[in-house]
Amino acid sequence: MTARHDLRINGDRLWSSLMTHARIGALDNGGICREALTVADRDGRDLFGAWCRATGLDVVVDQLGNMFATRAGTDARRLPIACGSHLDTQPCGGKFDGVLGVLAGLEIARTLRDADIRLAHPLTVINWTAEEGSRFSPSMAGSGIYAGVFPLGDAKRWTDRDGTGFIEALRAIGYEGSEPVGLRKFRAYLELHIEQGPLLEALNTSVGIVTGAQDMRCYAITILGTEAHAGTTPMETRLDPISAFSRIFVACEKYARSTRDARCTVGAMTLQPGSHSVIPRELSFLIDLRHPDNNQLLKMLSVLRTALEVERAHGYAITCSETWSSPAIAFDADCVSAVRQAAEVCGYSAGDIVSGAGHDAVYVARVCPTAMIFTPCKDGISHNAAESITPEDAERGANVLLQAVLHLDKTYEEQERTS
Amino acid sequence: MTARHDLRINGDRLWSSLMTHARIGALDNGGICREALTVADRDGRDLFGAWCRATGLDVVVDQLGNMFATRAGTDARRLPIACGSHLDTQPCGGKFDGVLGVLAGLEIARTLRDADIRLAHPLTVINWTAEEGSRFSPSMAGSGIYAGVFPLGDAKRWTDRDGTGFIEALRAIGYEGSEPVGLRKFRAYLELHIEQGPLLEALNTSVGIVTGAQDMRCYAITILGTEAHAGTTPMETRLDPISAFSRIFVACEKYARSTRDARCTVGAMTLQPGSHSVIPRELSFLIDLRHPDNNQLLKMLSVLRTALEVERAHGYAITCSETWSSPAIAFDADCVSAVRQAAEVCGYSAGDIVSGAGHDAVYVARVCPTAMIFTPCKDGISHNAAESITPEDAERGANVLLQAVLHLDKTYEEQERTS
Repeated sequence: MTARHDLRINGDRLWSSLMTHARIGALDNGGICREALTVADRDGRDLFGAWCRATGLDVVVDQLGNMFATRAGTDARRLPIACGSHLDTQPCGGKFDGVLGVLAGLEIARTLRDADIRLAHPLTVINWTAEEGSRFSPSMAGSGIYAGVFPLGDAKRWTDRDGTGFIEALRAIGYEGSEPVGLRKFRAYLELHIEQGPLLEALNTSVGIVTGAQDMRCYAITILGTEAHAGTTPMETRLDPISAFSRIFVACEKYARSTRDARCTVGAMTLQPGSHSVIPRELSFLIDLRHPDNNQLLKMLSVLRTALEVERAHGYAITCSETWSSPAIAFDADCVSAVRQAAEVCGYSAGDIVSGAGHDAVYVARVCPTAMIFTPCKDGISHNAAESITPEDAERGANVLLQAVLHLDKTYEEQERTS
Repeated sequence: MTARHDLRINGDRLWSSLMTHARIGALDNGGICREALTVADRDGRDLFGAWCRATGLDVVVDQLGNMFATRAGTDARRLPIACGSHLDTQPCGGKFDGVLGVLAGLEIARTLRDADIRLAHPLTVINWTAEEGSRFSPSMAGSGIYAGVFPLGDAKRWTDRDGTGFIEALRAIGYEGSEPVGLRKFRAYLELHIEQGPLLEALNTSVGIVTGAQDMRCYAITILGTEAHAGTTPMETRLDPISAFSRIFVACEKYARSTRDARCTVGAMTLQPGSHSVIPRELSFLIDLRHPDNNQLLKMLSVLRTALEVERAHGYAITCSETWSSPAIAFDADCVSAVRQAAEVCGYSAGDIVSGAGHDAVYVARVCPTAMIFTPCKDGISHNAAESITPEDAERGANVLLQAVLHLDKTYEEQERTS
């Protein structure tokens, strides 16, 4: 019998599952369109559920469609150790963002079944609903409500761009369960995810030990100028919102570039009325600010606010509201340590990293000991058909997940026995 | 009998016609939606046509829907003196842009009929099709094809945002006539139009004697950067097209602000993919450059091109193509002089001005002696429900148009008699 620390997942089976699942919502360009609560999402869930049941897992769906697939432990009174991520994608996403974490969880359950190992704790593999904020906003909807970040009632108001309600869409695909959201508690939660950034690849490191997540804030800003004719309005009498925007962007970008680990991004922008011969009346944009240190983020925010004040003094009417934020968090020390030791046991090159993106784990961390594992992805690209990881990195990530689960199972079991 | 230089139009009748016509396509906010070749445009044309026929004018429609309403002169062999503008509007336009020039032409014909004055030349009042480029692009379609700026075949390829073809829409409203476009020639063309800018109002001047039109060029520019995750991509590895755009805009705007009579406007912009958490891959925008002096415009264009080169050197892929241009033109000296003398005869304050906007007259000037008359509009606002002129200014503008027509009729008749 294999010693537990020698146990490894089946890399070929994991990769095969990833490739099979990637057929659902596949686009001609190699990308995946499996937006939350669409028919493709339903098909992806159905396949995952079928695989779980074939592995002997008990699958329960909560009122938000979050899926919990559990392999019993030796003591049903113990809280499960959980792992997972999400199966939904961006409108043109890749094959690994989210899916890797869910199917690696399934692979661990398959590995334990094959080795006939039963953990002291139940093991639950989770598919969180609607992690990508593309169809419904906000992002991380299922884990957010699970963790109490948003009230359940919010989901009743969310609609997609066609006006379809979140709950309506959930019902339409048959994934509105009966279990109250947040009822189910976990001893710990681990999430394997692609890095979605260039650092691990640049450092030639196989495993990212994610120690926490950065402070992230998004603001919706509208600059109101004066609509006027492009040909007849002298430059000196204009109140052109693009002029104000350029100065605001330059100020914030300059600050971010000169501040280590800061991130400043304008990803969305609209102009009204949007005609070539009309000086715009209104420019609306979203600006996303991130920094691992909350105080540093506040400094960047004050640069933004000062830039807005300067433009208000020029005569622009400007509104600014926070649309989303997530404070900097440090993941649970025991969970991070379990990931670190797992990478050591497996003999993989590993390094600490702070998550630059939002993840289900960032919300789950509010209610349960949590950590994450990052796998390198090619050129740091995600949310794109070009998203790419190697089978070897997928296997290494899943092995670290397995060993971290085994480590936590043992550690908690010892703690629970002696307490 | 009134001496011809004492003849004046009926200001109340003109204003009443403007207000009656403004009911067609009226919006709740006081604006007008009478986009080219829509049902509202048809209704607006029908009313104008009915008024023309009731005034004894002969109405002919050409293959592009351009409407020519003619009052016979004393000698049918003479080319008509024409005046007019357009009846179509922007999606949320005002009551005067275009309509003023057409209905002032009709008012002149009514005034001549009432005074029983027959000019030496026929008088033709014109409604040019699709001057506003909002539904179909380019702008000034009817006069552009009339003047040979675009071939007639182009119109067969133009479609609106719903894919409806220009000719299909023209047929649907019953305004595809049989007269070949451009067949009909004119001795001269005068166009009364609102200024669409703030200068006349600022100078407290009633009549703008338009001496020409500025050089106008519009470029479609696409900046291709690297799409990446907003949270995980370090600032120093980004190729963010908004960053490049801001620098390009600042460079061009700075130049325009420091160059007398220059205009630089970005009126339309789109980002791809347009998500708050994604550094955009692509930013496309339209930049509109104008200057009364062709050489000055070329200098501004070289500032733009240099700014694009700087960004290409940073690694951005940038395409730039001219979507539209109209060279600087000087209107016909005799026509401008007729407008100037007409303002003097009427005793109105008047000043020279260069048109900052495109107008049907700018194209017609390529094939026939042409000038324009500008009327002040409140705060320089047009293409907007707030577009506003006073009844007095409308009356003054139409009186100058009438006197300029009488002046040209006399001048040309004398020239033709002695030649």
